[in-house]
Amino acid sequence: MSIQPVQAFEPPYVMAVFSNVRTADDSGYPEVNARMQELVGENPGFLGYESARTPGGLGITVAYFRDHESLGAWRTNLEHQAAMKQGRADWYESYTLHVATVERSHGFARNG
Amino acid sequence: MSIQPVQAFEPPYVMAVFSNVRTADDSGYPEVNARMQELVGENPGFLGYESARTPGGLGITVAYFRDHESLGAWRTNLEHQAAMKQGRADWYESYTLHVATVERSHGFARNG
Repeated sequence: MSIQPVQAFEPPYVMAVFSNVRTADDSGYPEVNARMQELVGENPGFLGYESARTPGGLGITVAYFRDHESLGAWRTNLEHQAAMKQGRADWYESYTLHVATVERSHGFARNG
Repeated sequence: MSIQPVQAFEPPYVMAVFSNVRTADDSGYPEVNARMQELVGENPGFLGYESARTPGGLGITVAYFRDHESLGAWRTNLEHQAAMKQGRADWYESYTLHVATVERSHGFARNG
């Protein structure tokens, strides 16, 4: 399967942009990251997510939800909250989170 | 200067998420990219931007503006429109653009 950007969903929808710089501490991170991907998929309003990281530099993850209620359920999930706490303690040097309502979107594909 | 996520601006503000997969064609791309960074900086409502790319994979660029009017001026800028057209012709295999109003944001810094 080739890599693709997530699609342009039908507006309005919600997105959370998480831009971050990691510490050198990778202990437990891959496992928790995989578990979070599994867990968020159980949220009925979860639409998708995508992630990019420049080696040694900035990482940007964007998660898409149907509405603010769905995102709120994810934000208050206890297992997710424990992971966020561990992230601040161990894995992230710095981050910014931006939560927004998407009003319009469109996609382009060369062979689409 | 160390790499940092852009700050959490005072809501509401506008962000455009451009997630993309590049073609192998790099001709002219670095120059136009540098010119676009210079040009968008002349927009009085431009707040900042950040970008990450997984080697051989997805790239995500997020641009932040004070309001939709500022973003509209950028979208309709003729030199930017020519660059977007060239991007579809040469540089991008596929992309999705999501335009949104940010309602809340916060930041974290280990030593901040």
